[in-house]
Amino acid sequence: MINKLVEKIKKTKAPIVVGLDPMLSYVPEHILKKAFAEYGETLKGAAEAIWLYNKELIDHTYDLIPAVKPQIAMYEQFGVEGLDAFQRTVDYCHEKDLVVIGDVKRGDIGSTSAAYAVGHLGRVQVGSKKLSAFNEDFATVNPYLGTDGIKPFVDVCKEEKKGLFILVKTSNPSSGEFQDQMIGEKHLYELVGEQVAKWGEECMGDSYSYIGAVVGATYPEQGKVLRKVMPKSFILVPGYGAQGGKGSDLVHFFDEDGLGAIINSSRGIITAYKKEEYASFGAEHFGEAARAAVEDMIADINGALERR
Amino acid sequence: MINKLVEKIKKTKAPIVVGLDPMLSYVPEHILKKAFAEYGETLKGAAEAIWLYNKELIDHTYDLIPAVKPQIAMYEQFGVEGLDAFQRTVDYCHEKDLVVIGDVKRGDIGSTSAAYAVGHLGRVQVGSKKLSAFNEDFATVNPYLGTDGIKPFVDVCKEEKKGLFILVKTSNPSSGEFQDQMIGEKHLYELVGEQVAKWGEECMGDSYSYIGAVVGATYPEQGKVLRKVMPKSFILVPGYGAQGGKGSDLVHFFDEDGLGAIINSSRGIITAYKKEEYASFGAEHFGEAARAAVEDMIADINGALERR
Repeated sequence: MINKLVEKIKKTKAPIVVGLDPMLSYVPEHILKKAFAEYGETLKGAAEAIWLYNKELIDHTYDLIPAVKPQIAMYEQFGVEGLDAFQRTVDYCHEKDLVVIGDVKRGDIGSTSAAYAVGHLGRVQVGSKKLSAFNEDFATVNPYLGTDGIKPFVDVCKEEKKGLFILVKTSNPSSGEFQDQMIGEKHLYELVGEQVAKWGEECMGDSYSYIGAVVGATYPEQGKVLRKVMPKSFILVPGYGAQGGKGSDLVHFFDEDGLGAIINSSRGIITAYKKEEYASFGAEHFGEAARAAVEDMIADINGALERR
Repeated sequence: MINKLVEKIKKTKAPIVVGLDPMLSYVPEHILKKAFAEYGETLKGAAEAIWLYNKELIDHTYDLIPAVKPQIAMYEQFGVEGLDAFQRTVDYCHEKDLVVIGDVKRGDIGSTSAAYAVGHLGRVQVGSKKLSAFNEDFATVNPYLGTDGIKPFVDVCKEEKKGLFILVKTSNPSSGEFQDQMIGEKHLYELVGEQVAKWGEECMGDSYSYIGAVVGATYPEQGKVLRKVMPKSFILVPGYGAQGGKGSDLVHFFDEDGLGAIINSSRGIITAYKKEEYASFGAEHFGEAARAAVEDMIADINGALERR
């Protein structure tokens, strides 16, 4: 799947991923009305609203981008109905041939990690059958529990040719509280980065490993260090746009050939219609506003890569 | 909710929690047959099987125990249908007045952590309504992302009188890979424990904080240290039984009054019917075998507490 991701990035010339993180407050009024008219102000109504919103965002952007990253928390908050909308979103993105990165940040141990891995990336044994459940292409994973937590995910990735992005240095202001602590001469995030590189050695695609890392756009200096610590790991970079990261901050996350990193934007794209620069589209045309924001983001990042 | 947990532990004289972690391979043949006859070898069939299994386990143990801890991964592996079985399990446990600890190990930042928090512990705004989704009483949370990740959970706990158990030192063999690293004079897990104590200060129940910690039964020495680092935090202790922890190892997790800790057993209880000592019950009577295993576990732990 890492090979497919690299191919799609080359083809679209867009090292970006659109974060499908649908808060209900992001959904335009006309869609909310439609969903609530059908199902009432219920969890099912909310799930229908975010699904309709996603579908239109996907329809307006899928040909420009290699991948999407639905954040499962935004669906899970609406319970089982919300997770049904997550499933529909994943399936629809696959119909459009998009690579789907499930931003699930799961992490447990042994058979429990294995259960998450088969549920999100693999197939689960039911009697004589092996069945897919959520079926994303990549999943984000938390490393706090160590190798016991990661290994079951790696095993499923090997079998299914799927991939991981493991949290190394997250984009939030307090990420340093534990991740920046010094362990001897190294920060904790470097130690985790070294492990990611090690875990990734046994799952190499053509040029990159199936096992990647998450490093926040808000920490460009750390990105520079980690790019070297994990030379074969693709880096998923959240925090562009709304969280403060800019294209020029991001060049060090990439290799010389402009590969090796993929930049996520969520709010910056999916709520573009609410911003002054795209407001002229109007809420009815939020999909077109998202498309314009995607085009601008691609230009910003490619421009920065060309100028370096 | 921490007050309710403490009251129920006092009333049942059982500082234990039953882990409802239903692997399909644990479910007796007669239940699998029934579920597959109705829904086929499908995700829905698997979900029905684990729900029927859970229901019988709960019916045979609810009057002996204060709480259950369903591990959501075991449901999530069956996708949306599995999560529907999780929801039914949580609801049924509430009918039986059990405290439900959702072992979800979620952890993200800002609005994303807030979404997990409302989905699992709080109520989500849908139009003019506030609706409950999964509605557990406690959730387990991963601290790797720092205060930004924990604060939204704490806010929901304050509003809804719910609680957290934050991963500090996990029970698995490789938990030391990152958690045992020395930061100056302290291990990372001590640093996390200090933060748990700090986060917990603002959410005090009558005698303990709403914000507890997870410390594995397999690390009794670390448990002794952490009991002092977090004097007001309840400690959820996994790893009893199948993972190797024994009652006598666990006394240091408790305060002098025998409170302050709650010991989890999953496989040791729910697959008791497969063990030599309870095999005479037979697979048809797996609920009764679980009940006997619960009684033995309570006696083991209370015996160890009395002997110290």
